[in-house]
Amino acid sequence: MRHFISMFDWTPAELAELIALARRFKSGRATAEVERLAGRILTMVFFNPSLRTRTSFEAAMLRYGGHAITLSVGGDTWQLEHRDGLVMDGPAAEHVREAVPVLCRYGDLLAVRTFAGLKDAAEDAADPVIRAFGRFATQPVINMESAFEHPCQGLADWLTVEEKCGGVRGKRFVVTWAPQVKGLPMAVPNSAVLSLAAAGAHVTLAHPPGYELGPRVLEQARAWCRAGGAAFAVTDDQQAACRGADAVYVKSWGRPALYGKPDAQRESFAQHRDWMVTPGHLGPKTILMHCLPVRRNVVIADAALDDPRCVVVDQAENRMWVQAAVLSTLVGDAAGAARS
Amino acid sequence: MRHFISMFDWTPAELAELIALARRFKSGRATAEVERLAGRILTMVFFNPSLRTRTSFEAAMLRYGGHAITLSVGGDTWQLEHRDGLVMDGPAAEHVREAVPVLCRYGDLLAVRTFAGLKDAAEDAADPVIRAFGRFATQPVINMESAFEHPCQGLADWLTVEEKCGGVRGKRFVVTWAPQVKGLPMAVPNSAVLSLAAAGAHVTLAHPPGYELGPRVLEQARAWCRAGGAAFAVTDDQQAACRGADAVYVKSWGRPALYGKPDAQRESFAQHRDWMVTPGHLGPKTILMHCLPVRRNVVIADAALDDPRCVVVDQAENRMWVQAAVLSTLVGDAAGAARS
Amino acid sequence: MRHFISMFDWTPAELAELIALARRFKSGRATAEVERLAGRILTMVFFNPSLRTRTSFEAAMLRYGGHAITLSVGGDTWQLEHRDGLVMDGPAAEHVREAVPVLCRYGDLLAVRTFAGLKDAAEDAADPVIRAFGRFATQPVINMESAFEHPCQGLADWLTVEEKCGGVRGKRFVVTWAPQVKGLPMAVPNSAVLSLAAAGAHVTLAHPPGYELGPRVLEQARAWCRAGGAAFAVTDDQQAACRGADAVYVKSWGRPALYGKPDAQRESFAQHRDWMVTPGHLGPKTILMHCLPVRRNVVIADAALDDPRCVVVDQAENRMWVQAAVLSTLVGDAAGAARS
Repeated sequence: MRHFISMFDWTPAELAELIALARRFKSGRATAEVERLAGRILTMVFFNPSLRTRTSFEAAMLRYGGHAITLSVGGDTWQLEHRDGLVMDGPAAEHVREAVPVLCRYGDLLAVRTFAGLKDAAEDAADPVIRAFGRFATQPVINMESAFEHPCQGLADWLTVEEKCGGVRGKRFVVTWAPQVKGLPMAVPNSAVLSLAAAGAHVTLAHPPGYELGPRVLEQARAWCRAGGAAFAVTDDQQAACRGADAVYVKSWGRPALYGKPDAQRESFAQHRDWMVTPGHLGPKTILMHCLPVRRNVVIADAALDDPRCVVVDQAENRMWVQAAVLSTLVGDAAGAARS
Repeated sequence: MRHFISMFDWTPAELAELIALARRFKSGRATAEVERLAGRILTMVFFNPSLRTRTSFEAAMLRYGGHAITLSVGGDTWQLEHRDGLVMDGPAAEHVREAVPVLCRYGDLLAVRTFAGLKDAAEDAADPVIRAFGRFATQPVINMESAFEHPCQGLADWLTVEEKCGGVRGKRFVVTWAPQVKGLPMAVPNSAVLSLAAAGAHVTLAHPPGYELGPRVLEQARAWCRAGGAAFAVTDDQQAACRGADAVYVKSWGRPALYGKPDAQRESFAQHRDWMVTPGHLGPKTILMHCLPVRRNVVIADAALDDPRCVVVDQAENRMWVQAAVLSTLVGDAAGAARS
Repeated sequence: MRHFISMFDWTPAELAELIALARRFKSGRATAEVERLAGRILTMVFFNPSLRTRTSFEAAMLRYGGHAITLSVGGDTWQLEHRDGLVMDGPAAEHVREAVPVLCRYGDLLAVRTFAGLKDAAEDAADPVIRAFGRFATQPVINMESAFEHPCQGLADWLTVEEKCGGVRGKRFVVTWAPQVKGLPMAVPNSAVLSLAAAGAHVTLAHPPGYELGPRVLEQARAWCRAGGAAFAVTDDQQAACRGADAVYVKSWGRPALYGKPDAQRESFAQHRDWMVTPGHLGPKTILMHCLPVRRNVVIADAALDDPRCVVVDQAENRMWVQAAVLSTLVGDAAGAARS
């Protein structure tokens, strides 16, 4: 049985297989894999609100005869503890050691969304909540965005570049930081960089000094680019990076040194307002990407979002197709493991 | 492709066809139209809580092999912005320009509930949120109650009168205002008046001075009554209006001049406590209607709600049947448009 | 038509039939009863959050071709009033007299979760909310935990003892109180004691003085034990009670005399910290049970929960099987009533 918690646990070749399967789902040619989802129950546990993730996962199950059960931790249900050895006399009434195996008895797959704490970068990088789910689950666990990664978004990004740029290998993919109104996690840029590196694109990461991604992501992305014969670069020159890009992926994230200091974080954003992406950042054939939700005229200007080069809706649609591929693959893998 | 956002966009003959289809659904004779819903996904977006609307829409889809995904804006998901050109640095993290087309990629139909702001009557009458959904949707949009209209409730009202009064044409239909504990929107009385006017009933609207419905509704209702050979009247004499009615429809709404002044609104309600409907308002064959939820002994007296002439539960059931008709019609229309 | 609101309304023989059916569901042999759930809609109304109950009921319907609609009162929807004759000018916008019959028009079964008020033990024992649902429902009502009982949990407990202890008749079943961080209702211990008494086990209830269950439960449990040839005992010697037990069921509940006094309640808990269950409480073949959620190292020590004798996950899984049996039985009963 296998989880889809982290891209670090999958090889580029395996990720490419997921993309190929997603394309078959999208074009209606995934017969055997489609049948695997019929009658299956996906239990989705949300520690944070969601629009696209919730709807695209539920739609992926429903379209192929499966079902989805949605739980909001702290909303429909109580808070869950994941740390070991505590005297649980605080707000959390249940431990994942009980909750996770129980949920695995009712459904066939377990998907989890949990955001970064944004207090301690090292703790966020360890991704403790989703890792605890993985440790105690007896069914496949899918990452619907965790503190450190958003691998389903990363797959959707890969598929979108492949479709819109006529292939992905050797294409110039730029991930650029943009300002925000509050500190946000790095899960999305982490996964975008990893995914397109695994895909064989030339990857450039652009951000102001101080907004570095963690070393684990940078090393893995550099290694995958090198193995695929592609370049990997980091720069603080946004304009130069975007010039000539096949795809510009915009995303805001917080400055790790300012975690827990919202006022200082906002000041830092304010100093980089000119990183907001406009049509001027895009070449004539450059596609504009963003994972959504996007704050208009803060992160990206109206004129860029309303431009035909903007593919954010197609990118969001691809969430559904890559997730169908992931769900089907994990169910098939779990069934294979049960037989052997 | 067509939306069901406003009764103003549909002719009385088209609305009558929806009612006829609803009757076929209810009696189990709607085969071809039933099949249209199989495998379809309705995405429901709630800006406000709901009991009947949520359950009746979801049940309508499930009964006929379809599915429903429910999203609570601000609960399961974040707030959505609908105004254009803003710098989105406030609480709304996403714009309907992205959210609506994305949701249309996952499902087949999009239903929206949004209440009136109750601050500016002109803004409420323009129905900006649901209109924005309609503008950016690539799938049919259904109004589950907006600032200005509740057209599915209106259809359920029409069907209920038709069933309970032995037809609707020429029947005497009275919409009477009643007091409340807080200001409420006019969507329900607007749609009740429009719907029964379209149906060919004689429509009388009774309310204290100051509680007038907007001119657009009154003019359209008057025109539809005239075209159907029926009378349309407005009065502040509740007792006279109810005397001899075939159906008395009770509903509370706020006084537009007191929008944003809750204390003054409550005082105004208190001056009209005698507008609470009792069995004394009903003739021996008059049916008593209300859209629910109803505050007992504030809006309608216990004795009237517990009387056999009260049909509020049948009226609520009819929500499901008319909505099945609307959903099926819009799916068929969208499929037809896609073929042509 | 029959409800599953209270074990007092069912005979031990009828409850045993439900257990037998649950075993057939679990082993895949319940064909005719399975087919009853296909296409049925269960409407679930939650006045309180839930993880296991929500998921296990929804999974039970989905696995057998049925559907579930979930409503959170006060969350997705407004508050509901259940008291009669009031002027409803408070926070509750709707009365169960309308809400319940309406929900029965949309679905086939109605399930309700409502917690104890924990202010007045007599009011909690009367279980006014779920009883009001039962009174106004035109479809079968299922108790998903009410102020006074949790009968589905009780059935899961019975099934778990039967499976894990090689039968239930004559087995020694101990329900022991344990400390908590806040006052909790007695629904779970009430139903555990009643269920295992109906099953024919020897039942011992252990708690500190002042934590007595109500006389109605004690009398019924004593009568059912006597009728089954089994012993019923109450003690304040936890160690002696657990020694030699086949099953130790741990549960915290509040002290009725301290309802509404949270500080005094916490002090009382603190005086009985040594009632926390550890591996030392368990014999070599004793199984350890808890309904979950459980606060680790407050109610039960880590070492006991992580011990192979702990069966809490199996016990939680059994919720799904007994509920499938209850749902199927009530649907069959309602269908039979409709035919006759």
